[in-house]
Amino acid sequence: MVTEKTVHADGRFERGERTRRQILDLAVDLASADGLEGLSIGGLASKLSLSKSGLFASFGSKEELQLATIEHARQIFIDTVVRKAMMAPRGMPRLWALCDSWLEYAGRKVFRGGCFFAAASAEFDSHPGRIRDRLAALMEEWLTTLAVAVRKAQEAGHLRADADPAQLAFEIHSLFLGANWAYQLHGDSNALDRAREAIRQRLAALTPEVTRKAGGRARPSRS
Amino acid sequence: MVTEKTVHADGRFERGERTRRQILDLAVDLASADGLEGLSIGGLASKLSLSKSGLFASFGSKEELQLATIEHARQIFIDTVVRKAMMAPRGMPRLWALCDSWLEYAGRKVFRGGCFFAAASAEFDSHPGRIRDRLAALMEEWLTTLAVAVRKAQEAGHLRADADPAQLAFEIHSLFLGANWAYQLHGDSNALDRAREAIRQRLAALTPEVTRKAGGRARPSRS
Repeated sequence: MVTEKTVHADGRFERGERTRRQILDLAVDLASADGLEGLSIGGLASKLSLSKSGLFASFGSKEELQLATIEHARQIFIDTVVRKAMMAPRGMPRLWALCDSWLEYAGRKVFRGGCFFAAASAEFDSHPGRIRDRLAALMEEWLTTLAVAVRKAQEAGHLRADADPAQLAFEIHSLFLGANWAYQLHGDSNALDRAREAIRQRLAALTPEVTRKAGGRARPSRS
Repeated sequence: MVTEKTVHADGRFERGERTRRQILDLAVDLASADGLEGLSIGGLASKLSLSKSGLFASFGSKEELQLATIEHARQIFIDTVVRKAMMAPRGMPRLWALCDSWLEYAGRKVFRGGCFFAAASAEFDSHPGRIRDRLAALMEEWLTTLAVAVRKAQEAGHLRADADPAQLAFEIHSLFLGANWAYQLHGDSNALDRAREAIRQRLAALTPEVTRKAGGRARPSRS
């Protein structure tokens, strides 16, 4: 398998990794628009002018290809949305940065069909199995990331302590889904602004009086 | 076509209508879980032990079958969600009844794969054409229904006049999508309660002081 860390003197390993990345970049893009079920090793091989048997050797089965595509999308999501937000100071600035960079990710169409995970989980939610389990675990991971950011904002005194982190994470994530849905279906980029405004208002309403009076630098501002 | 209102003395019309309804009931159920693209005239005919040529005569093409399935789902949605809510008094009670009956519809799994329209629009949002156009028009119709209910609640003095109906409709609909998504993917029925609670709080915050003091009978109550 090309993932084995066997570095050949002739650079075969690097070439293998590069090819694998190229295949998975195309796979996440296709899957975000046409569905994970529509992926096929043969289809990818022909689009990239690669040998079908080489791709079979690399991925083994369609399900393995689908799972590798999900992991690749996760990595792109982390690099695009999460890593950037983590550079913001802990507390409300980081929570707001997470929201902002998610909406930017949806608006920039990092994946051709909009949020890869919204599309894939809607496609697989009625199909028990490894794909659905992995998607469910990743979505759980994302909601936990949001809930932890809420809790850290509470610990920093930027958000009222009586707000329920899981409830707030659910609400924020719902607004993401609503924005992505409207942007994908209607091409309505106002929906991204609507979601941003709703989140801003929701967080502002949960900002403790004292933080607000201090000038509210930690609060999300209109941008 | 079986939809022609030619009533034959031998009851052929009624039988035709009954068969068509039976086909479309199965089609919406399958499409909600496996996608509209997965529907096939042959597949439906074999599942219902009907002749494939009869179904072809009735629907003409796969696209016509998909469009008929969407209209059938719309009718079920109107009967289940909208009609019931319209019996509530105009104003906040009707707006709340719309929200409540939507969440009940998602919770009862009126369609096997959860909300038919959430699934179908996620499936077709990257595929321009008649199916996507029809879905986009129906979703617009639904958001308008919500926005009109907000406006009527404002006119009745049950909601603050400065709230933006389209913004509030977007937020409510996003919470529906979030609840349906979590319920379908994780089987998490708490998500329905989370959405209900978020909507209840959002509407309560927009209730004018005077209505609140009057005992707030028009306000959504915890149920």
